[in-house]
Amino acid sequence: MKKNILVVGSVALDSVQTIHGRTSKALGGSAVHFSISASQFAPVRIVGVVGEDFPSSFCRLMKRRNIDLEGMQVMPGKTFHWRGRYDKDFKNAITIATELNVFEHFKPSLSPSHSKCGVLFLANIDPDLQWDVLRQMDRPRLVACDTMNYWITLKKKSLEKLLSRVNLFFVNEEEARQLTKEHNLMTAAKLLAKMGPQIVVIKRGDSGSMLFYGGETLSIPAQPIEKVVDPTGAGDTFAGGFVGYLAASPDWRNINVLKRAMAYGTVLSSFSVENFSVRRTEKLSKSDISARYRKYVQSLSIDSDD
Amino acid sequence: MKKNILVVGSVALDSVQTIHGRTSKALGGSAVHFSISASQFAPVRIVGVVGEDFPSSFCRLMKRRNIDLEGMQVMPGKTFHWRGRYDKDFKNAITIATELNVFEHFKPSLSPSHSKCGVLFLANIDPDLQWDVLRQMDRPRLVACDTMNYWITLKKKSLEKLLSRVNLFFVNEEEARQLTKEHNLMTAAKLLAKMGPQIVVIKRGDSGSMLFYGGETLSIPAQPIEKVVDPTGAGDTFAGGFVGYLAASPDWRNINVLKRAMAYGTVLSSFSVENFSVRRTEKLSKSDISARYRKYVQSLSIDSDD
Repeated sequence: MKKNILVVGSVALDSVQTIHGRTSKALGGSAVHFSISASQFAPVRIVGVVGEDFPSSFCRLMKRRNIDLEGMQVMPGKTFHWRGRYDKDFKNAITIATELNVFEHFKPSLSPSHSKCGVLFLANIDPDLQWDVLRQMDRPRLVACDTMNYWITLKKKSLEKLLSRVNLFFVNEEEARQLTKEHNLMTAAKLLAKMGPQIVVIKRGDSGSMLFYGGETLSIPAQPIEKVVDPTGAGDTFAGGFVGYLAASPDWRNINVLKRAMAYGTVLSSFSVENFSVRRTEKLSKSDISARYRKYVQSLSIDSDD
Repeated sequence: MKKNILVVGSVALDSVQTIHGRTSKALGGSAVHFSISASQFAPVRIVGVVGEDFPSSFCRLMKRRNIDLEGMQVMPGKTFHWRGRYDKDFKNAITIATELNVFEHFKPSLSPSHSKCGVLFLANIDPDLQWDVLRQMDRPRLVACDTMNYWITLKKKSLEKLLSRVNLFFVNEEEARQLTKEHNLMTAAKLLAKMGPQIVVIKRGDSGSMLFYGGETLSIPAQPIEKVVDPTGAGDTFAGGFVGYLAASPDWRNINVLKRAMAYGTVLSSFSVENFSVRRTEKLSKSDISARYRKYVQSLSIDSDD
């Protein structure tokens, strides 16, 4: 029943500084964080672009996780490079520099076999490009997308067009408010669902996440983590666990399946923040994940007290 | 097995303005919000002070909820009056005026029967007064307290002395950080537990709450609420549900009992924000509470996926 997942998004080098240290040109990018997480559940194929400086060791790392890189173009020039830092509250990423490099002219083009993938994840890129990818797909069973404040400000119309055609929308709390002009997250989620997606997932960082599906709202907490080292990519890792689990499930139109997907997303993202880049997630075993999943689910199990 | 709960704290008149309307001299105060919530589970007795202007209808309202007012002194002068407002994000209460009035010279003194209550809740007042009340008690089975940023700044030593003698400490996220100088809430909770309390509960508003007990950290979400009208007293209502449930339980030193207490606190506080003052909570029936409790607990029940 497993469906191949196609992910289109950024493959990047990240230089990040937090109170616990720093990295220089470490493996990053939304497509990468998503893929490493999703690859725990189903086969993943990346469509993206890197420059000639992209280390072959990073390709090997992804291949070890059975991620298909056939759709990863190498272009003359340098790889997308993000330099940023977090303050001790880890609330907001502070961008020091964004060097788009080869990513500036990224124009994803799918091979016939890519277009037949059953599940599509459109990571945070220009909504016009997301739309262009969606158009190339051959009747996918599940389409999910993410976005960011930048596109909500600059290309709201394009984003709304895209949303009318996706099944599952991942959005940050602040972006949900920006897009709907509504502060209450339950109301915001309802308004977002009216734009198209049957499932809306609002990501709230260490406040957990909210699922809106079939008229019901469900809120679940983050897994408490004692030492947050680097939150970069946590949202994409969450989406990877979520979409990966759905891809491996016979039917995603089921609230119990969606709740497990939320829990897997939460668990995967809780690992991702424990180290820089993908250092923690690339090495996870099935049993690491199962153990934390069981503990998380158990912690939320409360007697009905009848 | 039910133990009487003694609560010592403020009884107030609140004039509050939010985007959904305003109240003028409505029933409020930490002891009131706590008591109305806790009275759903166990008999409650208030020790507090009001002025001659305190409406007798408010006393009748509390008596209808079986709250014992024998310890509520009426003093010459006016009742404590808080005037405040919330912005549309409901994040912080903005104080317009605090008129302490008779509360300024509040010096709680317990009758012999008060001092024999099995459960004590020391609502947010001067930690020296909280200590003074605790000293008058005759071997209570459970002592819980709350505080606020004001006392952490002004009377940290007194607060630390108090904490060394309480079983259960309720504290806001920001206060936990202020008191421990630690941003990570898991670490902050551990540090607070080292000061004395076996149970630390960190209240996080619409991000839910965290329980620290026996070396374990548990995080649960808030119940999503579509229309938050007034968050005043939500924290005390949470504590009321929590402590009330424990008072009615044979043994509070049990993680499953504590989890149910967290859930009841969450449910009671979710009702309290749906209207001004105690308008929503004073009228709740057992079945209103049970229905929302079951729904909440059910929403957090996730299959173990084995």
